Amino acid sequence: MVASGRRPDRLATDGGEFARLLAENERYTESFDRSALTPAPLSGLAIVACMDARLDVEEALGLRTGDAHIIRNAGGIATDDVVRSLIVSQQLLGTDEIVVIGHTGCGLLGVDEDGLRDRLAAASGRRLDIGFGSFDDLEASVHRSVERLRTHPWLKRVPVHGLVFDVTTGRLLEVD
Amino acid sequence: MVASGRRPDRLATDGGEFARLLAENERYTESFDRSALTPAPLSGLAIVACMDARLDVEEALGLRTGDAHIIRNAGGIATDDVVRSLIVSQQLLGTDEIVVIGHTGCGLLGVDEDGLRDRLAAASGRRLDIGFGSFDDLEASVHRSVERLRTHPWLKRVPVHGLVFDVTTGRLLEVD
Repeated sequence: MVASGRRPDRLATDGGEFARLLAENERYTESFDRSALTPAPLSGLAIVACMDARLDVEEALGLRTGDAHIIRNAGGIATDDVVRSLIVSQQLLGTDEIVVIGHTGCGLLGVDEDGLRDRLAAASGRRLDIGFGSFDDLEASVHRSVERLRTHPWLKRVPVHGLVFDVTTGRLLEVD
Repeated sequence: MVASGRRPDRLATDGGEFARLLAENERYTESFDRSALTPAPLSGLAIVACMDARLDVEEALGLRTGDAHIIRNAGGIATDDVVRSLIVSQQLLGTDEIVVIGHTGCGLLGVDEDGLRDRLAAASGRRLDIGFGSFDDLEASVHRSVERLRTHPWLKRVPVHGLVFDVTTGRLLEVD
């Protein structure tokens, strides 16, 4: 069972999480043999998903190394930066299908944006003029992102799917 | 060996890649048991990485489901949208360490941005005023992103590491 937001052993290891990552990577290289892969994703897919730690995009979708571009941000929202990434994905690396993934229990559901802006302004001494992408309706949020990507003038007219990932079951529900 | 940018069997399957994803997810749910995980990443880490298909962030870093926020875009660049995601990650979900990952053979290395803008403008009939984030020096690009995140007024003063992933060996090299 997970009792808190940290691994129990986190503070007990010298060097902390970052040293552990480098050690894990050393092991990873021993079995790594994907030198034949090119930058163009094998499946032609570009995935747009939330950054949430409980969503392992490759495992949940059965994707292998080299299969798909994976673009992730807070909320899995089709921001301008996602559009930039998708232009690069389509124009330079040939992807021709998009999957947008939101998820249950998202940290952006019902966030008090004014409160967050006030807190950051007080801490930094600088007023914030940005939005954080919070939403009240998960499926509606996925739908908005799907619609933006389906109609954006600089993106190709390719299939765009919308899914919701259930963090308690691992199941993907098609919503668009 | 990979001969082209597509799986050989791609066009032979009814419904294509998307149907395969849903079938893979059905299998995934059968062994899924992470219902005790909360939105707060267990390791306290937020990873910022390129969307490249050859970089499986979880596997390359030995991360397990629930461990870390994973933010990805074209280039693994610290854009405004990455800053937005990191504010959410730090303020709402308690992460306190950042790892930025660029990689060899990135599709954004040395891109002719003017040519790409002209091509998109011709196809869409609308002039583009955006940049794509291309760069000529991989380590310098990682360094710029690390510096921006270390000094950004709305981000906490937490450790920020810079790594380069070698797509031919799977190895991570610490550059910042």
